[in-house]
Amino acid sequence: MVVTRRIGLKTKGNCHILDITGQVAQEVAGSGLKDGTVTVFVPGSTGGVTTVEYESGLISDLQDLFDRLAPSNISYQHNLRWGDGNGHAHVRAALVGPSLTVPFVDQKLTLGTWQQIVFIDFDNRPRSRELVLQLMGE
Amino acid sequence: MVVTRRIGLKTKGNCHILDITGQVAQEVAGSGLKDGTVTVFVPGSTGGVTTVEYESGLISDLQDLFDRLAPSNISYQHNLRWGDGNGHAHVRAALVGPSLTVPFVDQKLTLGTWQQIVFIDFDNRPRSRELVLQLMGE
Amino acid sequence: MVVTRRIGLKTKGNCHILDITGQVAQEVAGSGLKDGTVTVFVPGSTGGVTTVEYESGLISDLQDLFDRLAPSNISYQHNLRWGDGNGHAHVRAALVGPSLTVPFVDQKLTLGTWQQIVFIDFDNRPRSRELVLQLMGE
Repeated sequence: MVVTRRIGLKTKGNCHILDITGQVAQEVAGSGLKDGTVTVFVPGSTGGVTTVEYESGLISDLQDLFDRLAPSNISYQHNLRWGDGNGHAHVRAALVGPSLTVPFVDQKLTLGTWQQIVFIDFDNRPRSRELVLQLMGE
Repeated sequence: MVVTRRIGLKTKGNCHILDITGQVAQEVAGSGLKDGTVTVFVPGSTGGVTTVEYESGLISDLQDLFDRLAPSNISYQHNLRWGDGNGHAHVRAALVGPSLTVPFVDQKLTLGTWQQIVFIDFDNRPRSRELVLQLMGE
Repeated sequence: MVVTRRIGLKTKGNCHILDITGQVAQEVAGSGLKDGTVTVFVPGSTGGVTTVEYESGLISDLQDLFDRLAPSNISYQHNLRWGDGNGHAHVRAALVGPSLTVPFVDQKLTLGTWQQIVFIDFDNRPRSRELVLQLMGE
């Protein structure tokens, strides 16, 4: 069985990291499926999804990581061509990836105790986002 | 239901980034499945799969990112042992990862408007590649 | 059909990279499923899963990559707050990601010849780990 859900998010952009665990868990619990996987998918090219222990120190550390790997203040061909200044956002998103697949058992996500699902908005402005959750199982 | 498809690619290697969205979309449309997920998988250790807005500026920016993170001209133990000069390709591939899972609904991939599925060939020579598409759904 | 399995690992921590291909392949072969996908999931925030050609040169090169991208000896807000010294482990794990989805056909993983599934324990001490394998197929 396949169940499709969408969740809406308001972000501040600029590497805003949002804990979406509660929303994903709620859709799993209400899906009518007992065991399976949920694929969290970002339909866009300036956001990514992964997991992290969601505490303010690590949120800051993760933002620092992306500032080191793909600084916003170096030259990007994308910016020279299109002038929207978010070249760093695109390459960060490609690196993290737009999909995460999490198993669930007895209607519960198999996350660790200190592990949260996060959406990272790398874009350089506030955005309204809609993520796709594809639940498959029985 | 499970449907397995394979797609063939000719690459130039050296961080050649290929837009495979059309091929994946075509296999989804012809699979007989309405809703589900397609897992795009790279059976090899010098290629990766992700999404990006496929325009020439960003292609160049993404190549620059990998040149910064894992330069080809630093020392790799792999090269010292095996002499094939593609140590950088292997570590880049491990970082990006070989699998991407994309939901589809009504036989259509749930990609954003400016988001394409790309295969990146990190190897240091042209290659013939075959990717696995595993479609699951109903 | 959905089949859930768990595999136990003893790690040395500190970027210990373990080849888990044999264990995953064995669970696929014994699952009763012929075709489908296996999602390898890390229930924790200091480990990651990907694929690499498992040879000692590349293991060392991959460890060097993470030392460059997220050194252990720079300042992390996580360490200042919690004093456990593993801030680098958390951000590395978030970058690599906790899930990998591999197709199987005729009870066999569709891996390349020189491609192994690896768990990377980024934590700064030995750990006992349990990974979740969610097999789906028919």
